[in-house]
Amino acid sequence: MANPLRIGLAGLGTVGGGVVRLLGANAGLIARRADRPVVISAVSARDRHRDRGIDCAGFAWVDDAGELPGRSDVDVVVECIGGADGPALALARDSLALGKPLVTANKAMLAHHGLELAALAEAAGTALKYEAAVAGGIPVIKGLREGAAANALSSVYGILNGTCNYILTRMEAEGLGFDAVLTDAQRLGFAEADPSFDIDGIDAAHKLSILASLAFASRIDFAGVACAGIRAVASADIDHAAALGYRIRLVGLASAEDGRLFQRVHPCLVPQAHPLAHVDGPLNAVVAEGDFVGRLFFSGRGAGAGPTASAVVADLIDIARGDTGPAFGMPVAQLAALPAAPQAAHAGRFYLRLAVVDRPGVLAMLTAALRDSDVSIESLIQRGDHGGGVLVVMVTHVCVEAKVRAALATMAASEDVLGAPVMMHILDL
Amino acid sequence: MANPLRIGLAGLGTVGGGVVRLLGANAGLIARRADRPVVISAVSARDRHRDRGIDCAGFAWVDDAGELPGRSDVDVVVECIGGADGPALALARDSLALGKPLVTANKAMLAHHGLELAALAEAAGTALKYEAAVAGGIPVIKGLREGAAANALSSVYGILNGTCNYILTRMEAEGLGFDAVLTDAQRLGFAEADPSFDIDGIDAAHKLSILASLAFASRIDFAGVACAGIRAVASADIDHAAALGYRIRLVGLASAEDGRLFQRVHPCLVPQAHPLAHVDGPLNAVVAEGDFVGRLFFSGRGAGAGPTASAVVADLIDIARGDTGPAFGMPVAQLAALPAAPQAAHAGRFYLRLAVVDRPGVLAMLTAALRDSDVSIESLIQRGDHGGGVLVVMVTHVCVEAKVRAALATMAASEDVLGAPVMMHILDL
Repeated sequence: MANPLRIGLAGLGTVGGGVVRLLGANAGLIARRADRPVVISAVSARDRHRDRGIDCAGFAWVDDAGELPGRSDVDVVVECIGGADGPALALARDSLALGKPLVTANKAMLAHHGLELAALAEAAGTALKYEAAVAGGIPVIKGLREGAAANALSSVYGILNGTCNYILTRMEAEGLGFDAVLTDAQRLGFAEADPSFDIDGIDAAHKLSILASLAFASRIDFAGVACAGIRAVASADIDHAAALGYRIRLVGLASAEDGRLFQRVHPCLVPQAHPLAHVDGPLNAVVAEGDFVGRLFFSGRGAGAGPTASAVVADLIDIARGDTGPAFGMPVAQLAALPAAPQAAHAGRFYLRLAVVDRPGVLAMLTAALRDSDVSIESLIQRGDHGGGVLVVMVTHVCVEAKVRAALATMAASEDVLGAPVMMHILDL
Repeated sequence: MANPLRIGLAGLGTVGGGVVRLLGANAGLIARRADRPVVISAVSARDRHRDRGIDCAGFAWVDDAGELPGRSDVDVVVECIGGADGPALALARDSLALGKPLVTANKAMLAHHGLELAALAEAAGTALKYEAAVAGGIPVIKGLREGAAANALSSVYGILNGTCNYILTRMEAEGLGFDAVLTDAQRLGFAEADPSFDIDGIDAAHKLSILASLAFASRIDFAGVACAGIRAVASADIDHAAALGYRIRLVGLASAEDGRLFQRVHPCLVPQAHPLAHVDGPLNAVVAEGDFVGRLFFSGRGAGAGPTASAVVADLIDIARGDTGPAFGMPVAQLAALPAAPQAAHAGRFYLRLAVVDRPGVLAMLTAALRDSDVSIESLIQRGDHGGGVLVVMVTHVCVEAKVRAALATMAASEDVLGAPVMMHILDL
């Protein structure tokens, strides 16, 4: 067996701690699969004396993570610090510039600086690996970059944030409101104290921008992701969606049409027959639609110490075996710069919910607004006794989003409409 | 861009024809992902003049596929001939012995000769690739060998034969019997004229033995797979399974316990909450349960020209990029020779169906037979008017299979039991 692959590990939080545990627990198996031992030489974290429940006595301790790439006993750097910029980015740049492979779970850093880092890795002839950055333990980066490599993909989409999926499935199962479930999710550790990165869809958007680059051989365009989270999803929406045959999920979806890249993260009505409708709790799932392979579906645990460490160590095994292929499937210079497709021109079916005053003519006003914007209605539910008003739920036929938004603007301007109308997309893939 | 990777393609049936079409349709994208063009130099098939709907005018024609490996314009051989032995095996041996990579979709050949071929590839420092051999276009070989590489897996299982799944789901949806659906499946091209390889579970057993090797870092042991097909599944079983909350699927399952390898292909009751219960029609799916990653689930199209070609070309792209890693994830000499676990010692819950004479004391006889074999009953359905007799369906609590078989032998010996009792396993993973 060859020389060991020696790791410099920056960050000993959930992910870093999981990597330490996994490399210890499965050392023998990993050495057989990597054809050499994979060992930690040096670690770095903010507080040396904190009890993390892991034994770091055998590793050199480095107070400044920035020293890891330069150490002669470090062959590869594993970045588990987090954050799009700051020390994580400095470490990644230094490691790659020195020609040492970098493994990271940091989707925010990749969404913002992935192309720069991939170019650095190419220039140095080394590897940038990030299987853990999207969908935790599910090997979806490898699945897209290599498994589906022969296909032109028409779309890639999925459930990319476990916190949102946990909240939505609990709202669905228990009939609770968003705030109550969020509070409980925070108590149980399924949501952060500051949950906005998750529930506003930003984390899913980071991941989607990475998947889109792999799927369409295009440059990462995080700024081009239209992003809406789940704060506006009400129990009433979940109930009405169920009555119509749908479940609500936060879906990240990217497609390439006519040389333009469409990217969106949004709460979405998923038909109950679609496999994404059965992805419950903190699970993640990714679907890719290819011209020869058809639909590929991957699911599993999208977060947590074990699944994330599984993906980090899979990358380390690839590196130990000599895999230094380009981070996004081809040299950065060959990735296409696709312009963003206009969101409003996207066609689909839409779910609309409005609370209206209970008086004659209101339904006629709503349906006239839709007619005047050339939007036709597939189904409509009207229910009285909604806080003094009437609840109207509609599903449109296929039309472009701009027309629905125009109709909604007309409706919202009416005194008979109480509060802001709710609009959600229906997943018809 | 580097020199093209030049292919010698043996066999122009469904798979070979699909490879020709895919390499033509997506040539530009494939060249970007492979970092070089992937082109066909020479082809071989039995009948040069048959119209296959593909244009082979640009390829050299070779009457004897055995000449492909020796050609100076062939860098890699793609074997799409089929059959465990004969010309396919000779071609594979010759290609690898000459140090030329081999790509194959031939699960029968791999189940029987995979270790020999992998050792040949190792000795020559070249690649044996076979993503298309299991689950068609789903990148499950890569997913297990690389994606889940950091994990000790406790089990790998799935729906590995699309023909059986198509038949079972049509029986379920339409209430038809096995023979009627089989005949129609043959007419529609979902089943072969001689369907025994599929419906007797042999094809699934070939695939399972390959998955087990990857999952448990063990030597392929096709002879150790206990194998039962779907001929004995009756509409009555599907109905009763549904009433009890299950769907019947042909499941291939392998697990490693106490250093022994358990491998079985069998029709199985899958709880409706399990993701395999929602894999319908000709789809395939594979589940792997890892100690750190948890459950990974992959699904997609398991057969057909497009999905199979997608997997073959993914292998070609890997080879074009220089990936010559060991076929089963580590050198053959390091794969463990795990003895087969005794099937009868395996514990689980069981579904039993018997037709009995309608007279007093029969139910007492059945329940006594179970009690005497130490098998306890979780649920029981009794229905009269079953062809003059009474239908009894039971689900046991967890017990070892030997005890259930002993009880069944006692029952079957009774004159009151009409025909052979039916026993199926319940998937409790």
